[in-house]
Amino acid sequence: MTDFAATKARFHLPEGLLYLDGNSLGPLPKAAPERIAAMMRDEWGDMLITGWNKAGWMAQPMAIGDRIARLIGAEAGSVATGDTLSIKVYQALASALAMRPERKVILSDNGNFPSDLYIAQGLLKTLGPAYELRVVNPEDVESELSEEIAVMMLTEVDYRTGRLHDMKALTEKAHAVGALAVWDLAHTAGALPVRLAEADADFAVGCSYKYLNGGPGAPAFIYVSPKHADQALPALSGWLGHDAPFDFDLDYRAGAGVSRMRVGTPPVIQMTSLECALDIWDMVDMDDLRARSIELSELFIAEVEAACPMLSLASPRNPQERGSQVSFRFEHGYAAMQALIANGVIGDFRAPDIMRFGITPLYLDEDDIRGAAKVISDVMNKKLWDKDAYKTRNAVT
Amino acid sequence: MTDFAATKARFHLPEGLLYLDGNSLGPLPKAAPERIAAMMRDEWGDMLITGWNKAGWMAQPMAIGDRIARLIGAEAGSVATGDTLSIKVYQALASALAMRPERKVILSDNGNFPSDLYIAQGLLKTLGPAYELRVVNPEDVESELSEEIAVMMLTEVDYRTGRLHDMKALTEKAHAVGALAVWDLAHTAGALPVRLAEADADFAVGCSYKYLNGGPGAPAFIYVSPKHADQALPALSGWLGHDAPFDFDLDYRAGAGVSRMRVGTPPVIQMTSLECALDIWDMVDMDDLRARSIELSELFIAEVEAACPMLSLASPRNPQERGSQVSFRFEHGYAAMQALIANGVIGDFRAPDIMRFGITPLYLDEDDIRGAAKVISDVMNKKLWDKDAYKTRNAVT
Repeated sequence: MTDFAATKARFHLPEGLLYLDGNSLGPLPKAAPERIAAMMRDEWGDMLITGWNKAGWMAQPMAIGDRIARLIGAEAGSVATGDTLSIKVYQALASALAMRPERKVILSDNGNFPSDLYIAQGLLKTLGPAYELRVVNPEDVESELSEEIAVMMLTEVDYRTGRLHDMKALTEKAHAVGALAVWDLAHTAGALPVRLAEADADFAVGCSYKYLNGGPGAPAFIYVSPKHADQALPALSGWLGHDAPFDFDLDYRAGAGVSRMRVGTPPVIQMTSLECALDIWDMVDMDDLRARSIELSELFIAEVEAACPMLSLASPRNPQERGSQVSFRFEHGYAAMQALIANGVIGDFRAPDIMRFGITPLYLDEDDIRGAAKVISDVMNKKLWDKDAYKTRNAVT
Repeated sequence: MTDFAATKARFHLPEGLLYLDGNSLGPLPKAAPERIAAMMRDEWGDMLITGWNKAGWMAQPMAIGDRIARLIGAEAGSVATGDTLSIKVYQALASALAMRPERKVILSDNGNFPSDLYIAQGLLKTLGPAYELRVVNPEDVESELSEEIAVMMLTEVDYRTGRLHDMKALTEKAHAVGALAVWDLAHTAGALPVRLAEADADFAVGCSYKYLNGGPGAPAFIYVSPKHADQALPALSGWLGHDAPFDFDLDYRAGAGVSRMRVGTPPVIQMTSLECALDIWDMVDMDDLRARSIELSELFIAEVEAACPMLSLASPRNPQERGSQVSFRFEHGYAAMQALIANGVIGDFRAPDIMRFGITPLYLDEDDIRGAAKVISDVMNKKLWDKDAYKTRNAVT
């Protein structure tokens, strides 16, 4: 049984603050600052260039990939870390398209994080006018899957509402029409158990600064199913994805498996910060996490709905259809969120009217949830979000 | 006049080590470990998500770009930092090619760092079979420039020999035939003054972990000439290159100027490390640096050549044709470099027979150069590189 009081004790959580925005940037593991400073002194400082081997920097992106693999139900050796999520989306998408050369359509939905769509648009510009990005409503993805589709690219959890796609069913349907599935796990990794191998996903990508708590600008990761990994085109064919980087051949020859998705020099300092977070994840069973996340989310919804009739639930009511966030719609959502922040509850706002709260069992407990709901109730019922009101009023009784 | 004793005092240089590999990974600024730890505690730890604005994380990639701009003779606002060098090569190359749609040939040379060629090969795979990467000898680049060439992509300083291309003359020649020039400054930035604006370069890219001392995995940078910046195609069209990232539009609309070359979430911790190094660069005049680099390089060549007739200079003899490194050829170069390292002089080896030494005035002085030459002389003349010899012998008298 995961000890969530123990995981909570490992994070720095500022006094007087209730942080429900871990789905945007996770908090600082207490061990991280000194560990990074020590790494800089002992490894960079004293080993200098020899740190690449002696300190294991060169192996770090794959070693960290294996630690993330456990959290997302991926096979050992199937995850590489590095770069940013956008870069990894580009690689996954370019690889998948190259595996279906006779098809020209990418299917996605308008609940996808816009950046994934931007990256697809950029890739299609490079690929030429024969290609098409088709963006439909989330609920229409299944019926839009046809033999025209080369790649279905979806974000499993909608960043606004937390609505969860059925990864297994949609992947199965995509395969049935001969398409490949690329899954973005930005709001899934560290939020709920993922079973990539079991779902037979072809590619997956994600970031590590949200639920995984790797720090601002922590590296992304990419999963390539072992059945594709030795054929996949890296697209961004960089030095460290080469089969023998230190031979300095003039021609690219892709490395074995997912390591070919490595591109340039890995961000060693950011990687070390992520390792501090993964030490905490080593204490966590993902099914326990899911159970706890649902418990806390249900409590949050119940408390907020009971006290705030002006807020309407934007997230699915059925916890099985929801990630680990709870969103409400409110006409003056932006102002209300500013007032919440001024009163010690941090969530965030997403246009046009979404107030979003991340539910993160690693460092939030029932008292935090009840406390946050109380502040929300005060802010909403006393209309502290009203511009004049919350300017003159900076504390909630 | 730059005070190089003062810059040297700002670096952590391990006792008993002579580090001539700053062209591969620069040493640790003494201030960095505590500054990073403080940033993690005070910014990430206490500000959490609000650090993006409050602590200026969001503005950091362009602010750092401006500090690098001074070192490479670029206009203010023309440099963005982020990602890795490979990613930035991809962006520059894709942009430049898109500006010459009627031409299909990239011209480069076999003195280019292989990764740049790999990236070009990957891009051409995506662009399709009409495109060609033409790789010639460095001395033939000029004569190979013709109206067939869309883009000339060169690394200014050869990573093996330190041979310097004439950026201004080659760029002028490229423009005369209607081609665009992409310059890789990996071994130039922080090694010698660059005058990108004066040379009328179209694009330039570089990394910050070598001469710039930004730390292992420090971010790369990209320069786009202001005359192209509002038309250039970012290719990797990510969230933070969008004109209004927080509008969450479903369609990409490139941001103004070089900021469109930003892709995903910037690596804030690595950026902060780079800032520590740039604080030292603020003390340096680039012309002083060049004069000092030549002085030290000439001294090094003289001392080594006088004592080691078995080593033949692989770098240009004329300092004006050389970057800030000195390379020698030696048949058993790999073994000899291992023996040097075992005896406290760190340089590196590049196949097939190059022993490479970085000359970095920020933290090397005459005594260091003489000391290194003395160790090299001992190792070479006593044949300590001979396998049996250097196994049993670990100190040089």
